[in-house]
Amino acid sequence: MSDEIGIGNMTGPKAGAAAPEIGVGLLGYAFMGKAHSNAYKKIPYMIYPPPAAPRLVAIAGRNPEGVQEAVSRYGYETGYNDWRKLIRDERVQLFDNCTPNASHAAPCIAAAQAGKHILCEKPLARTTREAAKMLDAVEKAGVQHMVGFNYRFVPALRQARQWIEAGLLGEIYHFRAVYLQEWITDPNLRMSWRLEGAQAGSGALGDLGAHIIDLARWLVGEPVRVSAITRTFVKQRPLGDGSGALGAVTVDDAFAALLEFENGAMGTLEASRFCPGRKNAQKLEINGSKGSLVFDLERFNEIEVFWKDDQPRDSRGFHTVLVSESYHPFWKYWWPQGHIIGWEHTFIHEITHLLDAIVNHTPVAPYGADFMDGYKNAVICDAILKSAGSGRQVAIKY
Amino acid sequence: MSDEIGIGNMTGPKAGAAAPEIGVGLLGYAFMGKAHSNAYKKIPYMIYPPPAAPRLVAIAGRNPEGVQEAVSRYGYETGYNDWRKLIRDERVQLFDNCTPNASHAAPCIAAAQAGKHILCEKPLARTTREAAKMLDAVEKAGVQHMVGFNYRFVPALRQARQWIEAGLLGEIYHFRAVYLQEWITDPNLRMSWRLEGAQAGSGALGDLGAHIIDLARWLVGEPVRVSAITRTFVKQRPLGDGSGALGAVTVDDAFAALLEFENGAMGTLEASRFCPGRKNAQKLEINGSKGSLVFDLERFNEIEVFWKDDQPRDSRGFHTVLVSESYHPFWKYWWPQGHIIGWEHTFIHEITHLLDAIVNHTPVAPYGADFMDGYKNAVICDAILKSAGSGRQVAIKY
Amino acid sequence: MSDEIGIGNMTGPKAGAAAPEIGVGLLGYAFMGKAHSNAYKKIPYMIYPPPAAPRLVAIAGRNPEGVQEAVSRYGYETGYNDWRKLIRDERVQLFDNCTPNASHAAPCIAAAQAGKHILCEKPLARTTREAAKMLDAVEKAGVQHMVGFNYRFVPALRQARQWIEAGLLGEIYHFRAVYLQEWITDPNLRMSWRLEGAQAGSGALGDLGAHIIDLARWLVGEPVRVSAITRTFVKQRPLGDGSGALGAVTVDDAFAALLEFENGAMGTLEASRFCPGRKNAQKLEINGSKGSLVFDLERFNEIEVFWKDDQPRDSRGFHTVLVSESYHPFWKYWWPQGHIIGWEHTFIHEITHLLDAIVNHTPVAPYGADFMDGYKNAVICDAILKSAGSGRQVAIKY
Amino acid sequence: MSDEIGIGNMTGPKAGAAAPEIGVGLLGYAFMGKAHSNAYKKIPYMIYPPPAAPRLVAIAGRNPEGVQEAVSRYGYETGYNDWRKLIRDERVQLFDNCTPNASHAAPCIAAAQAGKHILCEKPLARTTREAAKMLDAVEKAGVQHMVGFNYRFVPALRQARQWIEAGLLGEIYHFRAVYLQEWITDPNLRMSWRLEGAQAGSGALGDLGAHIIDLARWLVGEPVRVSAITRTFVKQRPLGDGSGALGAVTVDDAFAALLEFENGAMGTLEASRFCPGRKNAQKLEINGSKGSLVFDLERFNEIEVFWKDDQPRDSRGFHTVLVSESYHPFWKYWWPQGHIIGWEHTFIHEITHLLDAIVNHTPVAPYGADFMDGYKNAVICDAILKSAGSGRQVAIKY
Repeated sequence: MSDEIGIGNMTGPKAGAAAPEIGVGLLGYAFMGKAHSNAYKKIPYMIYPPPAAPRLVAIAGRNPEGVQEAVSRYGYETGYNDWRKLIRDERVQLFDNCTPNASHAAPCIAAAQAGKHILCEKPLARTTREAAKMLDAVEKAGVQHMVGFNYRFVPALRQARQWIEAGLLGEIYHFRAVYLQEWITDPNLRMSWRLEGAQAGSGALGDLGAHIIDLARWLVGEPVRVSAITRTFVKQRPLGDGSGALGAVTVDDAFAALLEFENGAMGTLEASRFCPGRKNAQKLEINGSKGSLVFDLERFNEIEVFWKDDQPRDSRGFHTVLVSESYHPFWKYWWPQGHIIGWEHTFIHEITHLLDAIVNHTPVAPYGADFMDGYKNAVICDAILKSAGSGRQVAIKY
Repeated sequence: MSDEIGIGNMTGPKAGAAAPEIGVGLLGYAFMGKAHSNAYKKIPYMIYPPPAAPRLVAIAGRNPEGVQEAVSRYGYETGYNDWRKLIRDERVQLFDNCTPNASHAAPCIAAAQAGKHILCEKPLARTTREAAKMLDAVEKAGVQHMVGFNYRFVPALRQARQWIEAGLLGEIYHFRAVYLQEWITDPNLRMSWRLEGAQAGSGALGDLGAHIIDLARWLVGEPVRVSAITRTFVKQRPLGDGSGALGAVTVDDAFAALLEFENGAMGTLEASRFCPGRKNAQKLEINGSKGSLVFDLERFNEIEVFWKDDQPRDSRGFHTVLVSESYHPFWKYWWPQGHIIGWEHTFIHEITHLLDAIVNHTPVAPYGADFMDGYKNAVICDAILKSAGSGRQVAIKY
Repeated sequence: MSDEIGIGNMTGPKAGAAAPEIGVGLLGYAFMGKAHSNAYKKIPYMIYPPPAAPRLVAIAGRNPEGVQEAVSRYGYETGYNDWRKLIRDERVQLFDNCTPNASHAAPCIAAAQAGKHILCEKPLARTTREAAKMLDAVEKAGVQHMVGFNYRFVPALRQARQWIEAGLLGEIYHFRAVYLQEWITDPNLRMSWRLEGAQAGSGALGDLGAHIIDLARWLVGEPVRVSAITRTFVKQRPLGDGSGALGAVTVDDAFAALLEFENGAMGTLEASRFCPGRKNAQKLEINGSKGSLVFDLERFNEIEVFWKDDQPRDSRGFHTVLVSESYHPFWKYWWPQGHIIGWEHTFIHEITHLLDAIVNHTPVAPYGADFMDGYKNAVICDAILKSAGSGRQVAIKY
Repeated sequence: MSDEIGIGNMTGPKAGAAAPEIGVGLLGYAFMGKAHSNAYKKIPYMIYPPPAAPRLVAIAGRNPEGVQEAVSRYGYETGYNDWRKLIRDERVQLFDNCTPNASHAAPCIAAAQAGKHILCEKPLARTTREAAKMLDAVEKAGVQHMVGFNYRFVPALRQARQWIEAGLLGEIYHFRAVYLQEWITDPNLRMSWRLEGAQAGSGALGDLGAHIIDLARWLVGEPVRVSAITRTFVKQRPLGDGSGALGAVTVDDAFAALLEFENGAMGTLEASRFCPGRKNAQKLEINGSKGSLVFDLERFNEIEVFWKDDQPRDSRGFHTVLVSESYHPFWKYWWPQGHIIGWEHTFIHEITHLLDAIVNHTPVAPYGADFMDGYKNAVICDAILKSAGSGRQVAIKY
């Protein structure tokens, strides 16, 4: 298991060889573009020696000033206002799509056809159908593909996966996860693409729920049936144009779902953006026949674990583990114990994993999420919406 | 609201008058019998002056030695081996049923017919039908009736109710509760009445779930629709007779449910006895338009609350409130702040409330749960089982 | 060690024999009198079968109405307005002194001379000299004697002692404890006996500090040297007579001390009543060569423990132990796991231990604190005041 | 106070102007060199637009391979094996000293004489005398100077300072801080420079204690008297040369101190490297007349605060604030709320502050620590050692 101590199943750089360069073309320069750019810039000196040296070839986006600022801010060689140009750029080997959900499919499919490796932010697509086309394209093209389910790269969650893989939790009985935020509780918050079904596909479900669906699959296994409900608490919001006019919110503000897994476990999932005080509260608990574990993204560096047969018995209780030892996942690259890291570090681990896969021709899954994971995630999201609409349990079929 | 600072809507003792005596007849001397007996013995000197003085008239049970020990241990005047004798005892004014679920209905109905006031442990009955008959009996008899949903009498939860009643949480969006224990995780644990459908009605649902269903109704309002799943993880267990033979577990080991409330809120409920490390983990969270609150029964004396508009804004965060000030619910009867109380104290508050209702002819609900609450609880439990069996959402109709 | 699982080193009731009766005479009916009375009343049915049956012979105090109310409230047979009468009462075998510090010495010495066993609330005395006389009296009289350091009877702290005794923490390096309250932060709070040196001996030191000094000695060993500082933040307060006149606060509002222990460990102690938000925050941490433990009285039922060599190493972290299993100290008498108990329960454990010692002629120490512990505690308190006054480290000599 | 929302009292870049370049020369490429290099590389794109653009001119160290690797890893233009060359390099405007304590004085003094601005890691020096010379040198040279007390740049602690400055905590009564680690608990851990008095000056005191001394001064004010004890638990350790020979540990493994502040507050300080389970546990609590606050470095993004007059009173309790809103200190440069940051980010804030001071000729103190702070810190460290040696309280005189 020694390989998994670092960046997981990373093959790593070839001994004595200079790190090969991989040309990166990034689409989107906002929140996610910033997080990914930071990762590309830090990998060469923090994950040292890196499996590959990212070359910041080009960044693209619709707003010319925005693109120009991103070029000079992050040090990209070129800026484009059309993603097609980015994909035509022969220096680009890895296409990284950090745009909103509605512009995932077309650029990714084109990039695959152009033979680029692809990293696409989550959720992969707005619908199962869209996701299927994207999966089809990357498989046909034979490129590496990854979906940005970055929480697989939280050290505490990678540690959780290692314990489960090693059988330390025994047979899994329960998975329960919530992903709670508060940012649209105010009914006067104005409309955005995230609140429009046509743009976003879904609301809390695709934005937050997709993450915990991915973790459910990654940590427990495939779900086979789902029952769900959704709610839209504020049905109209001011348009952003200052006219005072209202636009319809056409996505879920919250959802909850009950899962039955192939292996007999049961699960509950819930996501909402209407939870005052919850900033980024992705919380999960898993109970198995030998133990339990608990994670809270707001306490990123910690995991709580309970071993049923811990000795001595009078000291049994949940261990609060500060995941920051050199032997913990990813930590050999960081700091002395207790000098904690943060959310942005997940992207450094994730993209290193992808670069390694590209250079060494190793699979992205299961330690990273590939487009098959993105597709299955879309199938589950659609099943949740279908169940919520029909009041019936829905079978999950990939 | 000053009345609610003490024992809630208690009218209290008449000024200057000696506390009237109320004769108590208790059925069952095990876990719950011990908890109730302790309450009867402590009320006269801790809830001082008490609204009424409980007189420990008689205790009944099937095992003669057990009854005899209980008589001398707790100081009951008489012991019976047949509950019918207890009910015929004219000194008994309050019949307190602490037996397993299967022996709730017949004794309670007989007691009502004999004009006794009744306290019955939860769940009220094994089925809706049984509960309906019991409700019918007490209403016809015109006696006071209470179901032992003792968590309404946790100071922190009464405080929660007061905040919600006062509108401090605004419109309620979310209720989520789990009640997790670990005690049957071991597949070699032998059969007991709690694992037999005929005896218990249901498993984790009626034992643990009934409590959080009651809190959902009490804190948020009536649910109108439910979807649910159940699981029985260990389907056969050794019989307790030492023969090595196995008996079938015919109840749920765990359930999960999605609720839609009349007021538009959504809810999730889950209970399980297969959660290693969870001793008595009844945890709930409520999110409203103005704030959120969080409770964990294992930290009985605390409640966490978040106010959305707290000032100054840079110090907004969940307050961890130690509910132990003289102005907190029930606390004027206890100790200086921070000298915490425990689980057994809920029964002291609960039974004081009932004694007060009896003496002053005031209603048990809404601060306590009456048989109508017990009946509605049974309706919801049955709807959960029906949904789990059919894979369809079920409407809740009382 | 099985004996210690219950009430510690309790010998217990004689098999088959009825519990011998012990006549109790209580001096003081306020806060502590209520806590002790509750213990006497609960022991017979909760610590079942009890080592002895306390008989509530008499209660004494200066205020006739107060005494009369206490008699009827708790069921004492007799009320006295003079403690001398209490001590002359031949039915009284155990004299329990729940009065303020200034009235500890004379009644206790008289009671010893009258051959009564004695339980005296802490601190034993206002000064070393007073304590020495009290110790002398009980030793000469050959009676059982106990000081109310009730935190030795917190299940979590008894568990801590068991781990340390068993060597599980290894060599002890550090003891650090604070005892923080907030109740006199308001400068307008009026004078009381607790703020007068002549009445109380000291302030936060004797009231709160004495408890953590006792725990330091009980858990780590004898200190040999101490350095200390004290502070009186509010030097004058309104008298309670409504005159508007101010009285001088002549005790410490807070103290802090550095200890060196005989065994090489170092310690820090601090107590204050000027800590907003701290209700009853007695917190301690012990670090040894093999592990660490942490306790917080506001989370009475929990203890955190870290084992340095815990396996697997990647799950090392502080265990949050809910001390509520049937195999945890004192818990076989209480409830199923997770159904937590509170502060008042310490007195039930403490007094049971004393009754057992009386009946079976076993020593009160080390599981309980005797007058020798009370005396040594006074020596340390005096050394702390001396160091604070002189700015020099002071050797502790018993 | 709006300026303080960002990087504190940063003047910021001149509008419309390109960020001036500042040539950096770094001495030391290990733990701290890595942390500082990361900061220099991230500032230009994360603190955007930055007040100045750091140019990585040169890095120096004794080991040629180490220097060469650092050059290529971080992108320094030049590598030196002699710090004198670094200081002679005219491109270097800012000299950054990341070496062990023994090599702070000479290079810093030389750099000052060469007119370089200086950032020196803490503690500034091994003794008061050494620190005084360094302070003298920078004052004479008129350069900017900063000591690496990076915890002033934790967002939660800057927030704490803002609350205190604004008077929200009222009069300060108590400061208590510990800094606990576990890394030398194992007696077989071999000798290192940190355990030799000649190299390190002191042990836990200078390494960990210096940080909490700085926070005490920064948050509460100047201490005027101190009493202290120290301990060396393991007095000999294996030399690192493999000979099996033992070397003497000539520094403190732990210290504890009592402070009296000029403003009447009292304080306790303790640091140790012998606390199993404590990874990087810098914990502090401050109690004032209007409130209290609590910080734990292992939960870097959180601060707990209690307001004495919080409304409604029944919800008073410590707020657990996740310091990650755009209006919290430094956070406008980072991520959406709840997407937490880590320890390494303190250097980004700290060095940005220094660059801003250099460019805009503004003072480093009080938001950053300058050499005067480093000198006063050394005075207090020496007073602690003197008190520990003499058993007497020592007056602090700068």
